[in-house]
Amino acid sequence: NNPFILIGGPCVIESEEHTFYMAREISKITNELNIPFIFKCSFDKANRSSVDSFRGPGIDEGLRILKKVKTELNIPVISDVHTEEQIPKAVEVLDIVQVPAFLCRQTDLLVNIAKYNVVVNVKKGQFLAPWDMQSVIGKIESQGNHNILLTERGVTFGYNNLVSDMRSLVVMKETGYPVVYDGTHSVQLPGGLGCASGGQSEFIPHLCRAAVAVGVSSVFLEIHNNPTEAKCDGPNVLNLKNLKELLKQLKMIDSVVKN
Amino acid sequence: NNPFILIGGPCVIESEEHTFYMAREISKITNELNIPFIFKCSFDKANRSSVDSFRGPGIDEGLRILKKVKTELNIPVISDVHTEEQIPKAVEVLDIVQVPAFLCRQTDLLVNIAKYNVVVNVKKGQFLAPWDMQSVIGKIESQGNHNILLTERGVTFGYNNLVSDMRSLVVMKETGYPVVYDGTHSVQLPGGLGCASGGQSEFIPHLCRAAVAVGVSSVFLEIHNNPTEAKCDGPNVLNLKNLKELLKQLKMIDSVVKN
Amino acid sequence: NNPFILIGGPCVIESEEHTFYMAREISKITNELNIPFIFKCSFDKANRSSVDSFRGPGIDEGLRILKKVKTELNIPVISDVHTEEQIPKAVEVLDIVQVPAFLCRQTDLLVNIAKYNVVVNVKKGQFLAPWDMQSVIGKIESQGNHNILLTERGVTFGYNNLVSDMRSLVVMKETGYPVVYDGTHSVQLPGGLGCASGGQSEFIPHLCRAAVAVGVSSVFLEIHNNPTEAKCDGPNVLNLKNLKELLKQLKMIDSVVKN
Amino acid sequence: NNPFILIGGPCVIESEEHTFYMAREISKITNELNIPFIFKCSFDKANRSSVDSFRGPGIDEGLRILKKVKTELNIPVISDVHTEEQIPKAVEVLDIVQVPAFLCRQTDLLVNIAKYNVVVNVKKGQFLAPWDMQSVIGKIESQGNHNILLTERGVTFGYNNLVSDMRSLVVMKETGYPVVYDGTHSVQLPGGLGCASGGQSEFIPHLCRAAVAVGVSSVFLEIHNNPTEAKCDGPNVLNLKNLKELLKQLKMIDSVVKN
Repeated sequence: NNPFILIGGPCVIESEEHTFYMAREISKITNELNIPFIFKCSFDKANRSSVDSFRGPGIDEGLRILKKVKTELNIPVISDVHTEEQIPKAVEVLDIVQVPAFLCRQTDLLVNIAKYNVVVNVKKGQFLAPWDMQSVIGKIESQGNHNILLTERGVTFGYNNLVSDMRSLVVMKETGYPVVYDGTHSVQLPGGLGCASGGQSEFIPHLCRAAVAVGVSSVFLEIHNNPTEAKCDGPNVLNLKNLKELLKQLKMIDSVVKN
Repeated sequence: NNPFILIGGPCVIESEEHTFYMAREISKITNELNIPFIFKCSFDKANRSSVDSFRGPGIDEGLRILKKVKTELNIPVISDVHTEEQIPKAVEVLDIVQVPAFLCRQTDLLVNIAKYNVVVNVKKGQFLAPWDMQSVIGKIESQGNHNILLTERGVTFGYNNLVSDMRSLVVMKETGYPVVYDGTHSVQLPGGLGCASGGQSEFIPHLCRAAVAVGVSSVFLEIHNNPTEAKCDGPNVLNLKNLKELLKQLKMIDSVVKN
Repeated sequence: NNPFILIGGPCVIESEEHTFYMAREISKITNELNIPFIFKCSFDKANRSSVDSFRGPGIDEGLRILKKVKTELNIPVISDVHTEEQIPKAVEVLDIVQVPAFLCRQTDLLVNIAKYNVVVNVKKGQFLAPWDMQSVIGKIESQGNHNILLTERGVTFGYNNLVSDMRSLVVMKETGYPVVYDGTHSVQLPGGLGCASGGQSEFIPHLCRAAVAVGVSSVFLEIHNNPTEAKCDGPNVLNLKNLKELLKQLKMIDSVVKN
Repeated sequence: NNPFILIGGPCVIESEEHTFYMAREISKITNELNIPFIFKCSFDKANRSSVDSFRGPGIDEGLRILKKVKTELNIPVISDVHTEEQIPKAVEVLDIVQVPAFLCRQTDLLVNIAKYNVVVNVKKGQFLAPWDMQSVIGKIESQGNHNILLTERGVTFGYNNLVSDMRSLVVMKETGYPVVYDGTHSVQLPGGLGCASGGQSEFIPHLCRAAVAVGVSSVFLEIHNNPTEAKCDGPNVLNLKNLKELLKQLKMIDSVVKN
């Protein structure tokens, strides 16, 4: 029942400079509002819609930048891994290792991350019922690891659309593990642009308020200072300039719900 | 941007005594919390799952009781009509005439209610996209009637399940008409009990908080003092004893969102 | 296990001349292929998307034309009713009375048709699981009427889309009643054109072949000689010129499946 | 427009003996019916619901057995890979390399298989629209590989359920690549048993007939001689004893459709 944490940052590491800029700007806001902040940024986008999409700097350069953010700015960092090979390097740097939604059923990936006793954030697959996360949890717990976060990011609703079933947050909380609401991937329109995913960023604040009103441990947001120029997921990121106002509202709703 | 209104009451008129009891009990709570209250009760459940289901006292006896509630307790009343024949009688008594979700596309029903210039609350069909309510609105507006409420009550999500797409509230608000969130029918499991619909009343408070956090003009709740004995929709009604606590939370969230 | 029957015709009675033209043209083809044929045409489209949509000639003129088709061309006729008031007139003329999908749960409508011991064809609501048709059947059987047809016409699949779940045909057949596959409404894109429903007529033959391969008693098709000029449902009707080829294929598949 | 091919076999390699038994029994039937046959069996089930589920013999032992089947029985073999590391070994043995549905968007996996110019069978993710397979194809074609099969295995339809949208077969055929219908995974009830996926094997013949009637290049079936004892996917496999009858029907429908 602690106040919610922000997990946020740009979708992908565009450059060291941009990554630092975003981490600093977001942390200014979260410091001011007294909201715990974990910086999120991907070093590799391994399942982009198109083979030509920008993927990021790769694991070595990406982890170097994230480590620098962590050390110099004193902000915990989270990023996602896609293969077992990436795990040993990733756990050296990351405070939380994230498992992408499409990979949430890959037993070896889950088990091998779990072995390191790092915190694991598993995104619920778009194809999964919330109660089926119990089996995902079982794979991680099988290694004695109980540091688990569960993230809702929308469920398949017809073609090229996701719906945020707010009941899912309640069902996943019943596992006893903290639940995260991903307010930006939830507004994706998967494949909606033909060769890329579209998005409905106008719904981000609404869905985040709804999720916080249900009660979550964390809100996950992809944030960019210039969404139209973002190298990934531009159509569904939150514009940095709208972050402060949103977080203020979320904080007030959170305190109503948790008192 | 006014504070939300409660539209609430038992699913069906079980008896004059029970109807008055419920109207009084609910209005005690809403008076105390200073929440505007409209009493809802059906005189006929015309589309129950089974032919053997309880349907209510019928239109004449039902409207007699609702008129008495309205006059003696000074509470505005809303109820639903299912045929054009019921309309002239209904508009004599009701402050708001409700169109059931399954009937939201029946042109003659909509047009004939609209002619009376009464307030019309249309429940969005479980099969309808929120933007398609624009055509429903057009049917009512064609009669010069602009007193329209639009209600979200969940959308078909696979078999025997509904999901509350919170984006729908935002889309429907863009029509300019007040949006109502029906927090109890939204947790129905249609047909889920074989010969009747099941329900997940445990989700009612969560979904209502979410909807109010998105921003709605009204919350619609079916409420019963003894859900297990309710003659209709027992599995998805709110227990009267939980109403006050829920309304208090909703009021606080509402004030955060609308300030 | 009899060969399949064609229920077909234009969506709506556009004129007496056009109705006769269509009935004659279709029956020429079905006679040649030795396929039993029931002529379908609506006298009133009571739930069009828009208030301005063409609705048809109304019940009196419509039934007059259908009676003439029946008598002069010696073809059985089916049409749909929307209110209890229409029933006594309709049963005078129609061989089969059809209940529209949106109205498939309206108890009074079902019960009052059932009383006449006419054949009732109920379209499964887009919001209904196939096993839930058992309750619909129960309403008709409550009047001692066991002349029931059950029609699949697609189930809500996200927004503005329907999917034909072929399992539904099997589930409904287990009730013991004949199952009809509606191959043209199943390709509707409800509300997909803003003020009207779109359609994907290119899928009609594919879905009909699939349904017949599963095994059905009847295929239901809306057919028009000039789809782009059709006064209703143009985007999802079958072009008359493609009917013969389709029926030939269906007949061959039907005979494989039923032998 | 060639007659359809059977891709079939047990879900997982249970033992060398059982694998040979199944390959022989199936090929007896396909030889008799003159249906081309590719033997399918997995060496590792990498995304089972539960961490305790049986996974198979692993890649080295698994490929050894598959190679032996291929050489001794002269039957082409297909199996699935889950990581880039498995690819070089797999392409040494397999005639077709299969990409599991959950992994169908993993760029590196697709690209690295494609490099070997082997035939790639990609299962469409349960979360993907059929037209979005174009981007998947693009990843494979980027390596100059045009030996691609596309498999439909059902799309997410609410929780714990999949629906086979027969339109998907038509949409995917428009890419120009052969389309496979997976008639056994399509009847899975994902997660439906709590710690495992349920299944509705009674629908397998119906859905296969439907898919063949739409027109496919291949039918994919998991087959077991003793489904209740199968080490994987028992609830949704086809019983070996029903294979011959089904294939005979499919062959007749296929010839109707392709003539």
